[in-house]
Amino acid sequence: MNQVLIVGSVAYDALKTPFGSVDRALGGSATYSSLAASLFAPVAMVGVVGTDFRASDLRLLVRKGIDTSGLKREAGKTFFWKGFYEGDMNVAHTVRTELNVFAGFDPVIPSRLRRPPYLFLANIHPALQASVLDQVDKPRYTVLDTMNLWIQTQRKALLRVLRRVDLAVLNDQEVRLLTGITSLAQAARKVRSWGPRTVIVKKGEHGAFVAGPGWAFMTHAVPLERVVDPTGAGDSFAGGMIGYLAREGRTDETALRKAVLAGGLVASFTVQGFSVRALTALTRGRLRSRYESFRRMSEIPRIRV
Amino acid sequence: MNQVLIVGSVAYDALKTPFGSVDRALGGSATYSSLAASLFAPVAMVGVVGTDFRASDLRLLVRKGIDTSGLKREAGKTFFWKGFYEGDMNVAHTVRTELNVFAGFDPVIPSRLRRPPYLFLANIHPALQASVLDQVDKPRYTVLDTMNLWIQTQRKALLRVLRRVDLAVLNDQEVRLLTGITSLAQAARKVRSWGPRTVIVKKGEHGAFVAGPGWAFMTHAVPLERVVDPTGAGDSFAGGMIGYLAREGRTDETALRKAVLAGGLVASFTVQGFSVRALTALTRGRLRSRYESFRRMSEIPRIRV
Repeated sequence: MNQVLIVGSVAYDALKTPFGSVDRALGGSATYSSLAASLFAPVAMVGVVGTDFRASDLRLLVRKGIDTSGLKREAGKTFFWKGFYEGDMNVAHTVRTELNVFAGFDPVIPSRLRRPPYLFLANIHPALQASVLDQVDKPRYTVLDTMNLWIQTQRKALLRVLRRVDLAVLNDQEVRLLTGITSLAQAARKVRSWGPRTVIVKKGEHGAFVAGPGWAFMTHAVPLERVVDPTGAGDSFAGGMIGYLAREGRTDETALRKAVLAGGLVASFTVQGFSVRALTALTRGRLRSRYESFRRMSEIPRIRV
Repeated sequence: MNQVLIVGSVAYDALKTPFGSVDRALGGSATYSSLAASLFAPVAMVGVVGTDFRASDLRLLVRKGIDTSGLKREAGKTFFWKGFYEGDMNVAHTVRTELNVFAGFDPVIPSRLRRPPYLFLANIHPALQASVLDQVDKPRYTVLDTMNLWIQTQRKALLRVLRRVDLAVLNDQEVRLLTGITSLAQAARKVRSWGPRTVIVKKGEHGAFVAGPGWAFMTHAVPLERVVDPTGAGDSFAGGMIGYLAREGRTDETALRKAVLAGGLVASFTVQGFSVRALTALTRGRLRSRYESFRRMSEIPRIRV
């Protein structure tokens, strides 16, 4: 089956939400997206951790079938993020960021992983994303994620790497910040003009908007009565999506629509538990039953107008 | 065919948006909703206007097949609202409100309109909505709209009238204000416990969420690259919806889903022009073609999970 190569951060998070708190809980963009992708396809993960990285966390990744040979262990501590959410939990408030070993992260793709059919450049410095692209044989499909920080401080590097990917995943704030355009449909079109054939705009609890060549797709977020911890929702979405694409072995409009739906479903579980708890407890059966109820809720009836 | 009776405000609006401005433009909850409903079913409208109400505006309503025998003309000026929108135009900023003849509005339903199969209580004081219910023979289906002002100042009266209707239409802010609950699904359930069998939560550009007995439905808003004037979007949505129900002659889950979709489509046209311009210029052909493209954009694919 097609393998997915994922490059990003591995972190320990200390976070507080209205539903409780956790300390030194497994997190990071590569972690969430790899766990999500592993639901559908084999995954190899490239990142860096410190000597404090728990054996149990490594075992968890391995148990999910994730190839961790690209996960480098370096002297020092694992990337640490401390933050909290309040109110409607749409915004993560950062209390402290300790880059630790991540500060010197320079991803080296192990030679046997250099021909990845599917590549996810999770949220890291755009110059590092470019360096990954330099190291790999042209992948069949490349997806890129980013964040406000890089849009604001590394705009040129970001635009350079955007040219080289097939799909960019941004949230509504990011796409507006990047383009200066309020209308998401217009903003997505602008980003497409810079390179990526397809752009996904994530809208949190309002779902996602996808703009491709000559087509568009809208999807709702699964309505949840309780979001316990939104950390990793976007990474789970992107990971689930590229995992689904890899399993299908296709990246046309139909496959992308399905993959976006699958990614949204996976993310809806992630946010129902702290850290990666709900994501790692997710089974195909629970995914299937949520999909069925989601489909019933959002199927468009035929009308006469 | 089933007639829809609509009781609400008729106004002249002066408004400014990033795309221009209009003065003394036809507006009001009864106006928008009647014009929208008239696309699908015969409509009778009850409201009050001043002596300044233009003959051309009356002719417009009549030309759309609206029965205006319940539109009372009184000495004084028509309800006047002055406001503006800026930025993402999600909020209407009021500059001035002159109630004028609307201040003494006490809706009297003409005797031949007292057995309405479908009744829409557009946004007016909840005591007046109750008075309308007192005057009519039990309608087959009653829909109620309201606003922040009544939720804050007339909560008891509003809860009393809510008990007597089949469907309540609220926006996300209103339903949170009314229930004190952040989760829209939970808040809608709370409102249902107070009487209405079905509750629709409008989310503006993010679509709508519908909660019925044992079912839920989500729909997107039609994505628009340019919203010229959001005034009347909610009224057009509700009007189009009840008009569609009246035409179907059914109010079960399937009919409600279809009606919500139809209402959303109509509202998407309303906001593309100032005042009622785009709404009154709307043809069945344009509605049909937008529906087709909307369906393509939001149809849920079958996935294997």
